[in-house]
Amino acid sequence: MVDIATRVHNHKWKIDPIVRSLIDTDFYKLLMCQSIFRNRPDTVVKFSLINRSTSFRLADMIDEGELRQQLDAVRALRLTRGESTWLRGNTFYGKRQMFRSDFMEWFEGLQLPPYHLEKKDGQYELTFEGTWPEVMLWEIPALAILVELRSRAVLERMGRFEIQVLYARAMAKLWEKIERLKKIEGLKIADFGTRRRHSFLWQDWCVQAMQEGLGASFLGTSNCLIAMRREVEAIGTNAHELPMVTAALADTDAELAEAPYRVMADWHEEHEGNLRIMLPDTFGSAGFLDRAPDWLTGWTGIRIDSGDPAEGAERAIRWWQDRGEDPREKLVIFSDGLDVDKIEELAARFRGRVKASFGWGTMLTNDFRDLVPDGALDPFSLVCKAVSADGRPTVKLSDNPNKALGPAEEVARYKRVFGVGQQTAQDVIV
Amino acid sequence: MVDIATRVHNHKWKIDPIVRSLIDTDFYKLLMCQSIFRNRPDTVVKFSLINRSTSFRLADMIDEGELRQQLDAVRALRLTRGESTWLRGNTFYGKRQMFRSDFMEWFEGLQLPPYHLEKKDGQYELTFEGTWPEVMLWEIPALAILVELRSRAVLERMGRFEIQVLYARAMAKLWEKIERLKKIEGLKIADFGTRRRHSFLWQDWCVQAMQEGLGASFLGTSNCLIAMRREVEAIGTNAHELPMVTAALADTDAELAEAPYRVMADWHEEHEGNLRIMLPDTFGSAGFLDRAPDWLTGWTGIRIDSGDPAEGAERAIRWWQDRGEDPREKLVIFSDGLDVDKIEELAARFRGRVKASFGWGTMLTNDFRDLVPDGALDPFSLVCKAVSADGRPTVKLSDNPNKALGPAEEVARYKRVFGVGQQTAQDVIV
Repeated sequence: MVDIATRVHNHKWKIDPIVRSLIDTDFYKLLMCQSIFRNRPDTVVKFSLINRSTSFRLADMIDEGELRQQLDAVRALRLTRGESTWLRGNTFYGKRQMFRSDFMEWFEGLQLPPYHLEKKDGQYELTFEGTWPEVMLWEIPALAILVELRSRAVLERMGRFEIQVLYARAMAKLWEKIERLKKIEGLKIADFGTRRRHSFLWQDWCVQAMQEGLGASFLGTSNCLIAMRREVEAIGTNAHELPMVTAALADTDAELAEAPYRVMADWHEEHEGNLRIMLPDTFGSAGFLDRAPDWLTGWTGIRIDSGDPAEGAERAIRWWQDRGEDPREKLVIFSDGLDVDKIEELAARFRGRVKASFGWGTMLTNDFRDLVPDGALDPFSLVCKAVSADGRPTVKLSDNPNKALGPAEEVARYKRVFGVGQQTAQDVIV
Repeated sequence: MVDIATRVHNHKWKIDPIVRSLIDTDFYKLLMCQSIFRNRPDTVVKFSLINRSTSFRLADMIDEGELRQQLDAVRALRLTRGESTWLRGNTFYGKRQMFRSDFMEWFEGLQLPPYHLEKKDGQYELTFEGTWPEVMLWEIPALAILVELRSRAVLERMGRFEIQVLYARAMAKLWEKIERLKKIEGLKIADFGTRRRHSFLWQDWCVQAMQEGLGASFLGTSNCLIAMRREVEAIGTNAHELPMVTAALADTDAELAEAPYRVMADWHEEHEGNLRIMLPDTFGSAGFLDRAPDWLTGWTGIRIDSGDPAEGAERAIRWWQDRGEDPREKLVIFSDGLDVDKIEELAARFRGRVKASFGWGTMLTNDFRDLVPDGALDPFSLVCKAVSADGRPTVKLSDNPNKALGPAEEVARYKRVFGVGQQTAQDVIV
């Protein structure tokens, strides 16, 4: 029997929206948003799309009209009653009322600020400018829209069964990965793949497959909407934008050097337990740890998001040992460029030495490599970053010079201030 | 939106019936049924299930109660109005009104006769006895039920995503086969996989995938229900039961020697064109061709269903040449134990020499080898054959002694009468 109402309803959509909810975003964006809402609500920040896969001519693949329609659809979104109820009532990291009432009231009234879109040399220049708490919520939907529009452009040319077989292959491929992960003793892993997912429905499938396949080893997903719908944990802590924007606002070199710790001090006040996770690599991990204040050694863990991950973890272990902490009580979250080989290797290397945990991103939710000819669905390296704050450029150094961002003279100044010397370049795949 | 009516309706089923239509059967059964209805309506025939994979303890895998429920569900089926309309109104092999009114009236009133079921040594003894036109229609549903109940027993133990991934893998596997078949120039292929299909829904998927993937190279399906629903050709001609039963009824050796040709003479009167396809191997192909009357050389083609297929086709080519026919005008239908390797090999070998065509069975609709541990879903060799006619045992010699059937002394007599000497044994996989 055909459900006539559903069919009629489905045919009423002018477009098939990619992002259908303001909480179809990463959990850490909401945590950071609340922190920013409290500490720096009026800072004007500009986010910009940056396609690190420059050979990848996005504007030739994605129709500008369709992109505008999708972005406009996000601007039409408002937090729904059920979403608000979930954010207010759910337990996050073991804590109730993680989101304060003043923040929730602001969020309930939020509409995302306008975007600016231009085509240039086969790429899209897509920027968002506005007060920091508002504009920062564009990052994930903008990325998800661009990546999924590219997927759709490729799927558009395929037959019905070809499409079904494509997903069949992708499912079989992911399941083989899950079967390998199952064998890793004591594995802890979460989905961090929202921003570069093949599509929303595919990410939702991946999360459910991880749930069934990995059971308690699967910690949850960074995606709030999926966490809500699938009743799993929402996972995430904080990201580079906090130190980047705060540093950009510094008036002197001394203030600049202090900026990353000021951010952490705010976070220290706001959160405890498993949310006290440092992200040391914004301006170089080695210097960050060397100069870190004592209270940071008491934090629960560290997230390794660039550079050689084993090296990063070894550095953290030595740092904790030097400061009299037991690394076996500490959490190391690996979140950069992971796939099963790397996860197996890191899990084996650090078993019994630290509590390791994995934030698995693009290779979980968008590994369509080898499933269509000519790599037409291969993932690509797209980011959306804060590029200025109150008119001053931001900088990111990272532990991988290929991930550095910012104007050259500012990068040089930051390197000097943060004492960053020679760095080893690593390929950025996704 | 949930379609409440559909849900309520689905939950009303006491069982999930495997066979839901009397035309969920092979087209050749209906063609033969009509011929038998006309020529031998009162012969009492007994069909019996024979599991050639004896190590396969079917009765340990399939619950007797469930088997009875499924068989009872088939006995409750009647030809529906739409099915009758399709059989009466559709074009089969280019001909309208293939099924005569008297046959259709009989079919519209048909209920399948009772079955007899017993467990013995880990196997099911399942027999059907009744007048030939009625009882012969049990063959395909009985096989399809047993094979699918076995699939279900294995699926029963699997998780939801495990099941989805299983089908994902099976789809990817079939699609790879289709992609290889696509490359065979001038390929003609049909689905012959009803009897040993993994499940009805899976066969239906396979047919649609072949439609999209192979286009005009896909001739159609032997399954009438799927042919009707998917609007493709229903394919099939005749099978061993015609000569087997007719031979069993012969009173003398001379009558026995004539029996296979008597059957063909009836068929000659009833059909023309692409339905005039000999099946020579019932009592040995070589002898059948040697002694064949002249009018058989005018037939359109031959079906090779046992023995080495290339040898069988070469024999037919020589036979046509010896009798002054042009083999390039003749059809050779390969239908035994085919998979892509064999199809490629045969297509290449006979290109330009005969019109080759392929009836692809079990390896199309039930190739779940290597998709679950321990070969738990591997296909197995189950048949349901006429074992007696008016109380006399039937015999099949075939071109492969591993496919021979019948009591030893009768097999010896048939071998003498039909002049069958040494035969080469071939493994029977499915």
